[in-house]
Amino acid sequence: MDRLPDDIVQLDAETFASEGSQHHREELRLWLRLLTCTTMIEGEVRRRLRRDFDVTLPRFDLMAQLDKSPAGLTLSDISKRMMVSNGNITGLVDRLVASGHVTRRASETDRRAQVIRLTELGRAEFRRMADAHEGWIADMFAELTRDGVDDLMALLGRTKDSVRKACCNA
Amino acid sequence: MDRLPDDIVQLDAETFASEGSQHHREELRLWLRLLTCTTMIEGEVRRRLRRDFDVTLPRFDLMAQLDKSPAGLTLSDISKRMMVSNGNITGLVDRLVASGHVTRRASETDRRAQVIRLTELGRAEFRRMADAHEGWIADMFAELTRDGVDDLMALLGRTKDSVRKACCNA
Repeated sequence: MDRLPDDIVQLDAETFASEGSQHHREELRLWLRLLTCTTMIEGEVRRRLRRDFDVTLPRFDLMAQLDKSPAGLTLSDISKRMMVSNGNITGLVDRLVASGHVTRRASETDRRAQVIRLTELGRAEFRRMADAHEGWIADMFAELTRDGVDDLMALLGRTKDSVRKACCNA
Repeated sequence: MDRLPDDIVQLDAETFASEGSQHHREELRLWLRLLTCTTMIEGEVRRRLRRDFDVTLPRFDLMAQLDKSPAGLTLSDISKRMMVSNGNITGLVDRLVASGHVTRRASETDRRAQVIRLTELGRAEFRRMADAHEGWIADMFAELTRDGVDDLMALLGRTKDSVRKACCNA
């Protein structure tokens, strides 16, 4: 089931919690607010990628992975790194090959594996999108002060550690 | 393209930003940390729902929507409220009808529309899952102090306002 792209931006997951009446309601509200922020930002990024570059978020994410790995990645590397299932990665790669943004060649160390690399065109196109993306993100956090950004970064760092600990204990 | 369920919990989106060298790198890192936290928590919730109740996250989310609306919801209401596309909602509802957790009846005001409601069994089952879910979330935020929870809530509130403003201006 895919997330909805744009329509969701106005939707507020916190309304989910309005009827809760248990003991940990504060943490539940916090989680739903975190989810709402992420969903809003992701939806807006998805919308602007399509509007300004006519690309999907998975395509952008895949090109970001390849941009970080000049030596290339196998399909299996990509599956592991991307925050999506590998179901459609083959299709994404096919389309990027067809548009001249990536190459696909047999690995020199493992002939059964294919290595995917950005072409120069692909890298230039990705950098253009990445610059715009970084500006959009800055824009979306623009109402936070410098201290606000730092404090939020620190608190989310503590959250990550806390979640990791809970996951290990489960 | 679906998000991966569990495997992702260890994956850290912040590594995406490690090579950035532009002007707004702090905000980009903040966004990736926010995304990482959300992905970790969502993945863990998905994993525990499956492990403890043998249900999927979309099924849980749909039951949560129905629990909040005792008068029932049409498929179209559900599409608007759920944070997923409506592609599989019909299938989800079919399975919930088959398992006796919801009913589907023609609307009294619009004969063409069908109204979906939780059965008593469905409500009891959802409440059991919701109680566990609330405990899991509390567990995942357990390492934050009370002040930490309050501060994070306030900062995410400012983030929501900031994102909303950026989206309106786009």
